[in-house]
Amino acid sequence: MHIKNILNKLKEDDNQAYLLTQFTNIKYISNYKPTSFAFCIIKENPIVYASEMDMEIAKRDSSIEVKKYEKFDVMIEDLKNEGVKNLAIEPSLVYSTYEKLRDDFKIESKTYIEKERMIKSSSEIENIEKATEIAQTAFRQLDVTSRKESEDVLAFDLVRLMIENGASRESFDTILVSGSNTSLPHAVPEHKRLETPILIDWGAIYNGYCSDNTRTIVYTEKEHEIFDIVREAHDKAIKAIRPGLKCCEIDKVSRDIITEYGYGDKFIHSTGHSLGLDIHETPGFSLKDDTVIEKGMVITVEPGIYLEGEFGVRLEDTVAVENKARIIGDLEAML
Amino acid sequence: MHIKNILNKLKEDDNQAYLLTQFTNIKYISNYKPTSFAFCIIKENPIVYASEMDMEIAKRDSSIEVKKYEKFDVMIEDLKNEGVKNLAIEPSLVYSTYEKLRDDFKIESKTYIEKERMIKSSSEIENIEKATEIAQTAFRQLDVTSRKESEDVLAFDLVRLMIENGASRESFDTILVSGSNTSLPHAVPEHKRLETPILIDWGAIYNGYCSDNTRTIVYTEKEHEIFDIVREAHDKAIKAIRPGLKCCEIDKVSRDIITEYGYGDKFIHSTGHSLGLDIHETPGFSLKDDTVIEKGMVITVEPGIYLEGEFGVRLEDTVAVENKARIIGDLEAML
Repeated sequence: MHIKNILNKLKEDDNQAYLLTQFTNIKYISNYKPTSFAFCIIKENPIVYASEMDMEIAKRDSSIEVKKYEKFDVMIEDLKNEGVKNLAIEPSLVYSTYEKLRDDFKIESKTYIEKERMIKSSSEIENIEKATEIAQTAFRQLDVTSRKESEDVLAFDLVRLMIENGASRESFDTILVSGSNTSLPHAVPEHKRLETPILIDWGAIYNGYCSDNTRTIVYTEKEHEIFDIVREAHDKAIKAIRPGLKCCEIDKVSRDIITEYGYGDKFIHSTGHSLGLDIHETPGFSLKDDTVIEKGMVITVEPGIYLEGEFGVRLEDTVAVENKARIIGDLEAML
Repeated sequence: MHIKNILNKLKEDDNQAYLLTQFTNIKYISNYKPTSFAFCIIKENPIVYASEMDMEIAKRDSSIEVKKYEKFDVMIEDLKNEGVKNLAIEPSLVYSTYEKLRDDFKIESKTYIEKERMIKSSSEIENIEKATEIAQTAFRQLDVTSRKESEDVLAFDLVRLMIENGASRESFDTILVSGSNTSLPHAVPEHKRLETPILIDWGAIYNGYCSDNTRTIVYTEKEHEIFDIVREAHDKAIKAIRPGLKCCEIDKVSRDIITEYGYGDKFIHSTGHSLGLDIHETPGFSLKDDTVIEKGMVITVEPGIYLEGEFGVRLEDTVAVENKARIIGDLEAML
């Protein structure tokens, strides 16, 4: 089904083939996820060139033809023999591969698959729901507030709990940090006993699909004050989501609230990102993204306020867009 | 020191600047490792453009000037104002960024940093040694042979032990697999009790630097027979390493041995790869790599035989090239 849609788009743009190297795009199309490298070519007879090392799993998992990758030139010859002149590539293709293609083909970068992946099927949404359920169950089982352990050990305990609850792994490097570390949006857990506040940004992978949540456990009056602002920005942004609006309008809702309270310059990232097979997908709730929101999108809402050298607060939930936004997982029980 | 070397090479090639986006290359040059994206430009006055979100850690860690990234166009204007006409890029630069540069600059892809990184300093080697020591200590503390746990839980226990022993994290997704899973070089641990044989491919990161080892615990006569062949290929390849030889000659040593025993077509990957800030660096002991071996290189030797549907055996150590190869860590105590 996906392949048919892509073939139609290729035809419209007068491209005869589409080269994929991104692992999750290849997985989306073929159900085979490479472990080192692979080339997938969408054309009338789609094919995956897998490394020798991957042949066993590629043959096991792929829904399209698999050939052993021998040499780049062989692939180019195959394409030329099939009459491919205009070749679409992903924007993420590395320059060194582009260099080997540009003399033989007219190259154009296209986000056909990313656009296809924006709208999740019901089974994709079920996988994201299951991943979220696993991650949230693990979180409830973790003893954070007694603060008996160090950040890094607790982060790993959380991952182990996710695995025990059925995750194949974590969806990104778990952030479980405390004290002034919380003012870094991408902080790394350290080998030190937990201080306060405590910020946990974590997710599981289930059946290839990611979940993503953030909770901040606050203690002092000032931390509570900041938390309430972030909570308001989070709740109102989620309430504002509706098919037909633009993504940037949702970013504006949360950013305006935080700005009104005087912390606009402390909200140093965008309001949210889509997720699925990747933890970061398009579209996102950001200032510059004017993609129109559609049913079937799955996007995070994660406003934050970061007071450098002091502390930070972020609150993140993932929503599925229906007639309005439905929060995936259990918000209230998690706060 | 590194920057000076790169500036000299730039001059030789008539390039005025070198754009870096690869995180470990930026870390190598500036000591700041980006968490989402960054642009580092090596020129007379080298600079890092960091995302707003990373500004706090970039300012903390970077040894070169840091500027907040605003817009791509601003960066292009800065470069043009400084008289940059010929711009070197990394081969891994993504096409979408190349596309935004090609109208304003003459672009050439260069591996200046990768070449610099081939030869490790003594402090880099110390970090790799420490990472190896941590990983091997954790391995000794892990109870694998009682086979009481599942592959995935044991894999996580190994990671936790590495963390407890001082690793910042694992250097790649730990492979701890058993039974017929061992015939997949990049197998993923499953939620099932350990069968036999057991293959563990694991490593730690210490101070940014990776370690990499593989051990296979064999049981049956046939498994022992295959193990002995792999061991011979491993030992003789390591013995053959000498500055002045080409990397492909070392691959040939281990491949010839395995081929003599009739398993040449079951050795489905190259003999080894360099490591450092990345788990896979250049050069590698592969058929096609004619890089001359030099003192200061740190490379893995990891022959394997994979019998599809049955089992696989791999043995991997990391060596530092001196007058000959010195195995990092403790080989005998680990077998």
